[in-house]
Amino acid sequence: MTDHPDLPADAARETLSVGMVGYAFMGAAHSQAWRNAPRFFDLPLRLRMRAVAGRNPDLVAAAAARLGWESTETSWRSLIDRDDVDLVDICTPGDTHAEIAIAALAAGKHVLCEKPLANSVEEAEAMVAAAERARPAGVRAMVGFTYRRVPAIALARRLVADGRLGRIHHVRAQYLQDWIVDPEAPLSWRLDKDKAGSGALGDIGAHIVDLAQFITGDAIASVSGRLETFVTERPLPADHHTGLSGAADTARRGPVTVDDAAAFIARFRGGALGVFEATRFALGRKNAIRIEVNGSRGSLAFDFEDMNVLHFHDGDDDAATGGFRRILATEAEHPYMAAWWPPGHLIGYEHSFTHQVVDLVNDLAAGGDPSPSFADGLQVQRVLAAVETSSDSATWQDVTP
Amino acid sequence: MTDHPDLPADAARETLSVGMVGYAFMGAAHSQAWRNAPRFFDLPLRLRMRAVAGRNPDLVAAAAARLGWESTETSWRSLIDRDDVDLVDICTPGDTHAEIAIAALAAGKHVLCEKPLANSVEEAEAMVAAAERARPAGVRAMVGFTYRRVPAIALARRLVADGRLGRIHHVRAQYLQDWIVDPEAPLSWRLDKDKAGSGALGDIGAHIVDLAQFITGDAIASVSGRLETFVTERPLPADHHTGLSGAADTARRGPVTVDDAAAFIARFRGGALGVFEATRFALGRKNAIRIEVNGSRGSLAFDFEDMNVLHFHDGDDDAATGGFRRILATEAEHPYMAAWWPPGHLIGYEHSFTHQVVDLVNDLAAGGDPSPSFADGLQVQRVLAAVETSSDSATWQDVTP
Amino acid sequence: MTDHPDLPADAARETLSVGMVGYAFMGAAHSQAWRNAPRFFDLPLRLRMRAVAGRNPDLVAAAAARLGWESTETSWRSLIDRDDVDLVDICTPGDTHAEIAIAALAAGKHVLCEKPLANSVEEAEAMVAAAERARPAGVRAMVGFTYRRVPAIALARRLVADGRLGRIHHVRAQYLQDWIVDPEAPLSWRLDKDKAGSGALGDIGAHIVDLAQFITGDAIASVSGRLETFVTERPLPADHHTGLSGAADTARRGPVTVDDAAAFIARFRGGALGVFEATRFALGRKNAIRIEVNGSRGSLAFDFEDMNVLHFHDGDDDAATGGFRRILATEAEHPYMAAWWPPGHLIGYEHSFTHQVVDLVNDLAAGGDPSPSFADGLQVQRVLAAVETSSDSATWQDVTP
Amino acid sequence: MTDHPDLPADAARETLSVGMVGYAFMGAAHSQAWRNAPRFFDLPLRLRMRAVAGRNPDLVAAAAARLGWESTETSWRSLIDRDDVDLVDICTPGDTHAEIAIAALAAGKHVLCEKPLANSVEEAEAMVAAAERARPAGVRAMVGFTYRRVPAIALARRLVADGRLGRIHHVRAQYLQDWIVDPEAPLSWRLDKDKAGSGALGDIGAHIVDLAQFITGDAIASVSGRLETFVTERPLPADHHTGLSGAADTARRGPVTVDDAAAFIARFRGGALGVFEATRFALGRKNAIRIEVNGSRGSLAFDFEDMNVLHFHDGDDDAATGGFRRILATEAEHPYMAAWWPPGHLIGYEHSFTHQVVDLVNDLAAGGDPSPSFADGLQVQRVLAAVETSSDSATWQDVTP
Repeated sequence: MTDHPDLPADAARETLSVGMVGYAFMGAAHSQAWRNAPRFFDLPLRLRMRAVAGRNPDLVAAAAARLGWESTETSWRSLIDRDDVDLVDICTPGDTHAEIAIAALAAGKHVLCEKPLANSVEEAEAMVAAAERARPAGVRAMVGFTYRRVPAIALARRLVADGRLGRIHHVRAQYLQDWIVDPEAPLSWRLDKDKAGSGALGDIGAHIVDLAQFITGDAIASVSGRLETFVTERPLPADHHTGLSGAADTARRGPVTVDDAAAFIARFRGGALGVFEATRFALGRKNAIRIEVNGSRGSLAFDFEDMNVLHFHDGDDDAATGGFRRILATEAEHPYMAAWWPPGHLIGYEHSFTHQVVDLVNDLAAGGDPSPSFADGLQVQRVLAAVETSSDSATWQDVTP
Repeated sequence: MTDHPDLPADAARETLSVGMVGYAFMGAAHSQAWRNAPRFFDLPLRLRMRAVAGRNPDLVAAAAARLGWESTETSWRSLIDRDDVDLVDICTPGDTHAEIAIAALAAGKHVLCEKPLANSVEEAEAMVAAAERARPAGVRAMVGFTYRRVPAIALARRLVADGRLGRIHHVRAQYLQDWIVDPEAPLSWRLDKDKAGSGALGDIGAHIVDLAQFITGDAIASVSGRLETFVTERPLPADHHTGLSGAADTARRGPVTVDDAAAFIARFRGGALGVFEATRFALGRKNAIRIEVNGSRGSLAFDFEDMNVLHFHDGDDDAATGGFRRILATEAEHPYMAAWWPPGHLIGYEHSFTHQVVDLVNDLAAGGDPSPSFADGLQVQRVLAAVETSSDSATWQDVTP
Repeated sequence: MTDHPDLPADAARETLSVGMVGYAFMGAAHSQAWRNAPRFFDLPLRLRMRAVAGRNPDLVAAAAARLGWESTETSWRSLIDRDDVDLVDICTPGDTHAEIAIAALAAGKHVLCEKPLANSVEEAEAMVAAAERARPAGVRAMVGFTYRRVPAIALARRLVADGRLGRIHHVRAQYLQDWIVDPEAPLSWRLDKDKAGSGALGDIGAHIVDLAQFITGDAIASVSGRLETFVTERPLPADHHTGLSGAADTARRGPVTVDDAAAFIARFRGGALGVFEATRFALGRKNAIRIEVNGSRGSLAFDFEDMNVLHFHDGDDDAATGGFRRILATEAEHPYMAAWWPPGHLIGYEHSFTHQVVDLVNDLAAGGDPSPSFADGLQVQRVLAAVETSSDSATWQDVTP
Repeated sequence: MTDHPDLPADAARETLSVGMVGYAFMGAAHSQAWRNAPRFFDLPLRLRMRAVAGRNPDLVAAAAARLGWESTETSWRSLIDRDDVDLVDICTPGDTHAEIAIAALAAGKHVLCEKPLANSVEEAEAMVAAAERARPAGVRAMVGFTYRRVPAIALARRLVADGRLGRIHHVRAQYLQDWIVDPEAPLSWRLDKDKAGSGALGDIGAHIVDLAQFITGDAIASVSGRLETFVTERPLPADHHTGLSGAADTARRGPVTVDDAAAFIARFRGGALGVFEATRFALGRKNAIRIEVNGSRGSLAFDFEDMNVLHFHDGDDDAATGGFRRILATEAEHPYMAAWWPPGHLIGYEHSFTHQVVDLVNDLAAGGDPSPSFADGLQVQRVLAAVETSSDSATWQDVTP
């Protein structure tokens, strides 16, 4: 009998100690990633999940035990103050991102910040400035647009980068959910502008803006959009909850201060025409992130409800046998997949978070700049802001460069 | 041995004599409908395909023989002048619709006019006025938005009308083709603003505007749109051709004067948010008319590339067994289908034209008003005009009521 | 004004005069084909739909008018006796095929005979012998396995013939319907062994046997099968009906004497392993003819419920971008499709019958042998007979060569 | 700062200490399950991953570190001898299952044994006897047919158990892979009858036999089958490898002693007709476990390549709106899913292993009998044996009850 440590111990490997702020839905997904990354990928750094921070001592203690963190803190400031934390992983609502990230960077901690980068362009700009100030000292910052790490999406990006699509003419992207179609669904923090910044636009629209720019390698230059709030008043939650659901207090109602849905058309710098739609009112669509890109040489289509698949039309195929290929992106030749199971054995939602950790850790070890950067997050924020302004003014808006 | 006439001869049935103008793609589809309708449906009128008109006597004679018309005329005016023609079926390019239709209506002929109703709002208004003037004398006018008669689409309309979708929140509609992605595709009449009026917007965008309004039973109130011409100059056609394809004269080039693609967002009068896109540059998509409607009780999705299927999500299904139903609209219970083949035996593109004839003939026999009316066609035209104005002015535009 | 005949009149073209026996479901489909073929295809012979035969004078007269036949006969013998009939098209139940076909061939008429060729191997052998006797005089015989003429299926055959699949390892084919799942569905002639010969096996199993052999270009060598009758007694039909449905006389019941479902495994001469299933009890499947073929270089998959599509996996694609291609078989490059509509405009069930007429007429004009021949029909019959024997004896059975 | 243990520490909870034998593909999947189960599910026992056993000390040490096991053993016997191991998880090739499982049970250890239960009916019978001997002492045994724990599959079982399908008429099941289509793929242990017992039949056919019996709640009574080996000789592996792939030693060749593909038809005790096919030669299909069940009231269809989806046709839906529902089995109302992510966030292959651990641990804590039992595994083995005998004898075979 021989005893072994819990994690791959390589004396030659340096340790990256992680502290996480927040432990709800995103915290659970990030924890799973920190735990799993070294089990499936050969990482250049040894990971330690040092501490998780949350205000309620009992809840954070329970979360630490469940999610696998060594210790707890009851404030994000004390987490940042710890010498044994190298990286701060921010999984709190958007209104807190700027303050935590800027403090962490100033304290010399790497930062992984959940999307949206912030609730406003101003906050996001401050965060980019903080990241730039910290960078010379080797401190790195990354924003968590995890869907980039879905293998089928990463493959899509690779095909565009390889020129397989040619000149891009069209991007159409939708993020469709349905969790508040019921007008009696309670007024959660995600429907409160002060907490969430915006509604469908910032929460899920942000993802398709990032994906569209990531896959095409291009940026949105101008937009015309419209925000809608179909249900303007809702019952208050029965108690303070932070998640996606919960009971309603039917006696008291409050105003919905964010958009239920957002739609906009866009022009990309390279001339492509984009059509975007984000909604929480698409009954029957649960997490349908759909993106289709049409170029002069090829086309791509993706739907997260079938996330292991990328559809690819190669315009070079002859007319009689051409057609969209259903690529099951589970081969060793596909991004990230050599580390997982044999071909045809699917991966799920949380694996993208693991890939995010893998890429981040590799970049940190190599001294590279992890991607997407805070500047990428800011660019997304600027697109969202332009959509809001456009909706308010009923005019096209340029995205501030 | 007993001899029988070629068509169902019912002495008690009156005859409707039809004259058609134009015999290209649309003329072939309409002829197939006039020939087939009485073979599969029990019509209240006996149909005669009296005459087809076209400028070139040889070509029109060949077309008459091929398509089944009894005689030919070399001008639409002489067709209208014939006493033995009760209905004029207009299958020519859009720039001729107004003149022919107004003359035919003035001559007391019923009119079936291919879409778009006209190339401008002004022409369309004049046509509506002509239809109103003719109506008291029992003369009827119809515009040919045939996709309404795809059984799956007609079923979609029925479900909305029956309240199965509840309040409509979203309409997303796309009409995707790819036939001019190649920058060397020749400059056909469909790329010439004088002939075609507009490009993708009027040619195929018109269809999804009509379908969206038909299925929801609502009208588009305002729009913000963008037209794009990706390839601004093309080789001239090697010879005068009128169809969709043909060889190019690579030595000479001319300007493309219409849009290659159009996208717009819209608000419906009832509060729904619409997203529309029409393009001839979606490589790999051949005739993908896609429309999805999300309501508070149910959702619908359709794609013409699988035209016998309607996807329907019934929000009343319990959570564990709910999901989009793939309705194969080939049952006798589905619109129009009792006349065709057993369940599971699909119909094709041209059957919708047959259904259009069936509905039109039934309406004429009953003295009813065929639908879609010229006023419906005008409303579509006004939406398209608002999109163009919006694209030019970079502002939202109301659709003139 | 110029008068034109009803059909393309080319004085240089000879006329092929057709007589049809039977006018139910198959008769309607065949009539549509005879009417349509010259409208869309340039045929070397001029077609005349001379006469249709049926026992009931009133019904056959109504059918003639509706389906477009010039005259009627009340017996198939008198039809065959007519000098002005060149080809006899047999659309009656299987128990009459042999007698009619043999008589027609002996009278020097070409024969197009609906599938199954006959209700027994003996009858089918006699028909093949009759066809062979008639052949030296230029008389031709064809059996109507129309699904071969679905463009996607014809494309599948072409890909195999071109070597794109390599060595064939697997064929899996299903023909799934559900029209008698209800145990109270009446006992139609199709459930009567004397009339129909067999149940699901002969009616629909015959089609997938033919398709499997056609696509692979190989023949089934041996089988092991099982027939099942899930509902052994049913109410008698309320009246004599010949179609697929009708009311039941709930007071009287009779035995079901054919199989409700048939399944068998097979070895092809070339070494492929086949799995076949035909059933009328697959609830929710209406006319699902599914066939998948796996070879050493490529794979194919087809489902008639999406009949314009062929799925093709090209094993030569690189691992990262390989996947089943959804080929929308509506391009001019696809079999038969240049004659119809632009790409993306689907065709339906009945178009395959038109293609059958086109191929038959071309073969007759060229003096060629139309395919599938009566010998092909006999081979299918032998496979079905081997399945029945196997089911009875619980052993593998060779297919008599 | 507060320190926390690595796993949820509940003093009131007893500990279940696990030892695993084997650490290749299955060992990695099982380890992931042992690690994850307590992170997402509230388990009645505290889990410890005590030790992993393997012959090579260096490799097993590396595996322990990577997979999260506290210690190592270099023989399965020493693992079984340890007092601090309560449960032995067997992840080795099938030829070792019987010996290890019987010894572990005799030593009073619970056993989780990967499928197939054994390489022969005799071994499986001995294992069942050993499980029965151990049971009175509270020792439990389970065989790892993990696909039962795919939520969509568990939902399928629930629907059948609830009577939503009515009387079952048809089961058609396929397990399609393509990893040895290339005749130059090396002769791995999975192609060696001594190691693997059988080829496609036992490796993947076992899964669809189990799934068919599980979903229907019925048992296969008799079979007629055929095994095929398309490539009878292959290059030897370049070195000893145990996984699915590896380089070939092109100079030396050896015989393939197992089946490449297996097909069989079956009768269930309840009268249903089954059609089964398992192959490693279905080019383009990677891990396509497809099962369709048709009953008198409803139908089900599943494909593992889209594993989060169950298609369900409810025969009680009215004819106009009926159709297969695409149920995205990611709702809290679906089996196991409340523990994971919000609706629409997919899970992957390995999650079924986690569910297996959850069910097993719950059963152990409650003193229940985990399912599938060794007797269930034996029944599958008997079906496979009957298929082999049938293939050898070319006759139908009853499955020994």
